[in-house]
Amino acid sequence: MDSSNNWRERLYVMIFQSDTPAGRRFDGILLLIILASLVIVMLDSIDSIHRNYADVLAYIEWGFTAIFLGEYILRLYCSPKPLRYAFSFYGLVDLLAIVPGILALYYSDAQYLLIIRIIRMLRIFRVLKLSPYLKQANYLMSALRGSKQKIVVFLVSVCTLVTVFGTLMYVIEGSEHGFTSIPKGIYWAIVTLTTVGFGDIVPKTPLGQVISSLVMITGYSIIAVPTGIFTAELANAMRGEQLQHDCPGCQKKNHEQSAAFCSRCGSQLFKKVE
Amino acid sequence: MDSSNNWRERLYVMIFQSDTPAGRRFDGILLLIILASLVIVMLDSIDSIHRNYADVLAYIEWGFTAIFLGEYILRLYCSPKPLRYAFSFYGLVDLLAIVPGILALYYSDAQYLLIIRIIRMLRIFRVLKLSPYLKQANYLMSALRGSKQKIVVFLVSVCTLVTVFGTLMYVIEGSEHGFTSIPKGIYWAIVTLTTVGFGDIVPKTPLGQVISSLVMITGYSIIAVPTGIFTAELANAMRGEQLQHDCPGCQKKNHEQSAAFCSRCGSQLFKKVE
Amino acid sequence: MDSSNNWRERLYVMIFQSDTPAGRRFDGILLLIILASLVIVMLDSIDSIHRNYADVLAYIEWGFTAIFLGEYILRLYCSPKPLRYAFSFYGLVDLLAIVPGILALYYSDAQYLLIIRIIRMLRIFRVLKLSPYLKQANYLMSALRGSKQKIVVFLVSVCTLVTVFGTLMYVIEGSEHGFTSIPKGIYWAIVTLTTVGFGDIVPKTPLGQVISSLVMITGYSIIAVPTGIFTAELANAMRGEQLQHDCPGCQKKNHEQSAAFCSRCGSQLFKKVE
Amino acid sequence: MDSSNNWRERLYVMIFQSDTPAGRRFDGILLLIILASLVIVMLDSIDSIHRNYADVLAYIEWGFTAIFLGEYILRLYCSPKPLRYAFSFYGLVDLLAIVPGILALYYSDAQYLLIIRIIRMLRIFRVLKLSPYLKQANYLMSALRGSKQKIVVFLVSVCTLVTVFGTLMYVIEGSEHGFTSIPKGIYWAIVTLTTVGFGDIVPKTPLGQVISSLVMITGYSIIAVPTGIFTAELANAMRGEQLQHDCPGCQKKNHEQSAAFCSRCGSQLFKKVE
Repeated sequence: MDSSNNWRERLYVMIFQSDTPAGRRFDGILLLIILASLVIVMLDSIDSIHRNYADVLAYIEWGFTAIFLGEYILRLYCSPKPLRYAFSFYGLVDLLAIVPGILALYYSDAQYLLIIRIIRMLRIFRVLKLSPYLKQANYLMSALRGSKQKIVVFLVSVCTLVTVFGTLMYVIEGSEHGFTSIPKGIYWAIVTLTTVGFGDIVPKTPLGQVISSLVMITGYSIIAVPTGIFTAELANAMRGEQLQHDCPGCQKKNHEQSAAFCSRCGSQLFKKVE
Repeated sequence: MDSSNNWRERLYVMIFQSDTPAGRRFDGILLLIILASLVIVMLDSIDSIHRNYADVLAYIEWGFTAIFLGEYILRLYCSPKPLRYAFSFYGLVDLLAIVPGILALYYSDAQYLLIIRIIRMLRIFRVLKLSPYLKQANYLMSALRGSKQKIVVFLVSVCTLVTVFGTLMYVIEGSEHGFTSIPKGIYWAIVTLTTVGFGDIVPKTPLGQVISSLVMITGYSIIAVPTGIFTAELANAMRGEQLQHDCPGCQKKNHEQSAAFCSRCGSQLFKKVE
Repeated sequence: MDSSNNWRERLYVMIFQSDTPAGRRFDGILLLIILASLVIVMLDSIDSIHRNYADVLAYIEWGFTAIFLGEYILRLYCSPKPLRYAFSFYGLVDLLAIVPGILALYYSDAQYLLIIRIIRMLRIFRVLKLSPYLKQANYLMSALRGSKQKIVVFLVSVCTLVTVFGTLMYVIEGSEHGFTSIPKGIYWAIVTLTTVGFGDIVPKTPLGQVISSLVMITGYSIIAVPTGIFTAELANAMRGEQLQHDCPGCQKKNHEQSAAFCSRCGSQLFKKVE
Repeated sequence: MDSSNNWRERLYVMIFQSDTPAGRRFDGILLLIILASLVIVMLDSIDSIHRNYADVLAYIEWGFTAIFLGEYILRLYCSPKPLRYAFSFYGLVDLLAIVPGILALYYSDAQYLLIIRIIRMLRIFRVLKLSPYLKQANYLMSALRGSKQKIVVFLVSVCTLVTVFGTLMYVIEGSEHGFTSIPKGIYWAIVTLTTVGFGDIVPKTPLGQVISSLVMITGYSIIAVPTGIFTAELANAMRGEQLQHDCPGCQKKNHEQSAAFCSRCGSQLFKKVE
C-alpha cells in the first residue's frame, strides 16, 4: 500500500511538474504528440489527402485519442484531488482532447468536431507554463494589465471611428459599389483602418476616396497609440524589479533590489530589529 | 415648491452626475438604449431585413425617439441653467438624437438622416466621460497635446511625399494603368504609403514598380516616427517629471529626478537620517 | 539713394524673414498662392475638367507664373547678395516655379512639366521653415541623424531578405503564377514584407504560401526594429537639452541645463574666473 | 623566402582586414563586383533579356566566376591557416560563389543554381562586418538577444491565434469561399493578422466577416507587443547600465545610475570638490 502511494507520488511529480529530468522528458514527449495530432487534423482537412487517406488518418486519430485517454486516466489517478483537477481549466481541456475521438465513432460528419480537436492546441500552454518562459510571459501580462484601461479607451474610440466612417461610406458610396449595408461599411472601415486592405470592397466615388484617405491616415497614425501605451508600460514593468519603500530621509520611493541605504541621501532604509 | 426644487436637484444629480448608485444605474441604462438604437439603425440598413421588417423597425425607432425626447425634456427641466445646457456640445448632441425621428415623419427618404442617427453614438462618450477611464484618457490626451507640433510636421511631410509620389506615378504609369489623374495618383500613394494596399490600382511598368517599392519602404519605415513621438511623450507623461522639494539653501523648487544636491547652490537636499 | 536702400532693406525683411507682422502676412499669402497653384495642377490632370476648362486653367496658370516671376525678381532685387540667393537651394526652387509656365508657351505637351510644377510644393517648406515648427522638426531630424547608422544596417538587412525571398519565390512559383523574373519576385517580397499586400501577385503553391507566411511574419515583427531605434533616439533627443560637462568630483556627464553644482556630489561645476 | 612571407602578410592585411587604405579599397571594389554579379543574375531572369542576351550574360557570369575563383585562391594562399579559413562560414560562402559558374558548364538548366548565385549576397555582410556599422549592429543584436524569450512567447501566441482563427474560418466559410483546408485557413489568418491583406481569399459570410474583424483588430493591436519589447530592450542597451565606481566604504562596484550614496553601506560615493 505504501509503495503504491509512493509510486503515485512519483507519477504525480513526473506528470504534473517539470523540475525533474523525467518530468521534462514527459512534457517534451507530450508536446510532440500534441503537435503531431494537430498536423493530422490539418492534413485531414486537405481535400485530396482526405479522399485518399481518410482511413489511415482515422486510425491515427484513434491512436492519439487512446494516448490522450490514457494520459487523462493517469492524471486522474495520480492527482491528490482528482475532482479538483477534473474541473480545473486544464482538466477540462484535457477532457476535450478525448471527446472528439469518441464522438467521431457515432457521427460521421466530423466537420464541427474540428474546432474541438484544434482546442487541443491549448494544451501546449500547459507544457510551456512549466518552463522558464513563464517569467517572460508574466512581464508581458503585467504590462498588458497595467495598460488595460488605456487600451479600453483606445478600443472604444476605434469602434466609434469605425462606425461613423462605415456609415458615412455607406451613404456616400451606396450598395452599387459594394457598401450594401452599414455593417458592411463598418467591416470595410475595419479592413481599412487596420491597414489590412483586402481590396474586396473599394471606394469608387471621389468623395469616398477622400474619406478613405482620411481613414487610412488615421489608421496609420493611431497605431502609435497602443504601441506607445504598451511600450511605456513594459519599460515600467522591466525597470520595476525595484524595492518599493519610502526613504525616511527624502521619501525616494524606488531603490535597488538589495539596497540598505538610500542612494540619494544615504539614510538607512530599514532599522535593525533587536 | 421646496420639495419640487429638492426633487429637481435629486433628478439633476441622477441624470447629470455619476457619483451615486442611481446616477450610475441611469448611465448604464442610457448606454444600453443608445447601443440598442445603433443596432436598429444598422439592421435597418441591411436590404433583406429592411424589405421584411421596415415597419417594425420604424415603430422601434419611434420608441427610441420618444425615450430620447423624454430624456431631453427631463434634462432641460432639471438643469439649473437650461439654456446653457441646450447650447452646450452635449446638449446639441442630445437634440440631434431626436431630430431624425421627427424628420422621418415628413420625409420618407431617410437615407441622409442615417448619419444624424449614427451621431447618437457620440452620446456614449458622455456616459464614459463620467467614469474612472477619464484619467487614462487624460494621459493619452496630454501625450497627444505634447506631441501636436511634431505630428503636424510629420503630417505635412507625409502630404508632400504623397503628392510628389502620386504625381510621379501619374506621369510614369498614365491613365491606361488606372492612374487617371493626379488626385487618383495621390489616393494610390496614400493607399500604398499607409501600407493598406487595396490592390484596385497597381503599378504595371518596371519603373512604376521601382518607385512603388520606394513608397512602400518609406511608408514601412516612417510609421516609426509617429510611434516614436507618441511613445516618448507618453513615457514622459507617465514617468512624470521632476523632484518637487524646496532646497534648504536657495528654495529652488524643481530638481532632477534623482538629485542629492541642489544644482544651483550645491546644498545637500536631504539630511541623512540616523 | 539712401531711401531706396532703406526701402530695399524693409522689403528684404518682409520677404525673407518672418519676425515682423508684414513678413508673416507675406508668408501666409505666399502659402495660399502656392497651394492654389497646386490645386490648379491637380484639377488640370483630371480628364473631364481638362477637356472643358483647359483654356481657363491655362490662363490661371499664367497668372500664377506671373506672380511667381514678380516674386522672384523682387527677391533678386532686395537680396543683399543676389547671386548667392540665385544659386541657393531655395533660389533654384523659386526659379523652377517659373520655368514650366514659360516652357509651356513653346511646348504643348506639358505632361513632363507636371513634375516641375509639383516641385513648387517644396516652397511650402520655405514658409514653414520660418515658423515655430522648426524646433520640432529639428528634434525629429536629430533623432533621425542619431539613428542613421542603425537604420542603414536595418535597410541593408531588409534588402538582403527581400532579394533572397524574392529569388526563392521566383524559383518556387515560377512565371505561371506571376513571378515572371527575379526583380518581379523582389517587388512582390517588398509588397509583402512591408505588409502592403496589393494582391496583384499572390503565391499559389503550398510551399510558396509557407514561405509567404514566413515573409509576412518577418515583416510584421521587424517593423519593431526601426520603431524601437527611432523611439529610443527621440527619447534621448528630447531628454537631451542637458548640460554636457564632466563634474570635477564624480565625472557625472549630464546636468540640468542651468546647473551650477553637480546634483550627485554637490561639487561646483565651473570655477569663477577672476 | 622572407620577402615572400612579407608579401603574403601584406596581402593578408589587405584582403582580410580593412584598417588600411588598401584594405578599404579592396573591400570597396569587392562590394561593387558582388553587386554587379547580382544585377547580372537578376537581368538574366527577365525573359525578354534572357532570350536576346543569354550568351553575353553567360560570358559576363564566367568573368565573375573567374574573379571570385582568383580571390578564393588568393585568400587560401595568404591565409595563415588555410584549412580553418576554408571551413569557416565565410570560407564556405566564398566557395559557394564559385560553384554555380563551374556547374553551369555541365548543366544547362541553371534554374536551381539561381539560389546559390543569390547566396553571393551574403558576402556583402563580410564587407560590412569590417566597418563602423558593426557597433550599431551589435546594439541591435544585444537588444534582440535580450528580448529573445519574450519574442518566443509572442510568436507561440501568434501561432496559436492563427491556428485557432484559421480553423474557425475553415469551418465557417468552407471551401466554396476559398477556405479549402485548415492550412489554407491558417495562411489566410497569417495574411490578415499581419495586416498584409492580399485579398485573394476574403470572407463572404456575415459571421466570417465578424471574425475577420476580430482577427484584424487583434493583429493591429498586438503589433504593439514586439515593438514594445524591442524598444524597451533597445532603450536599456543604449541607456546603458549602471554607475561603475568603487564605494570607498564597502568596495561595491555597481550603483544606480544617479547614486550619490552607496546603497549597501550608506557611504557618500563622491567627495564634494571645493
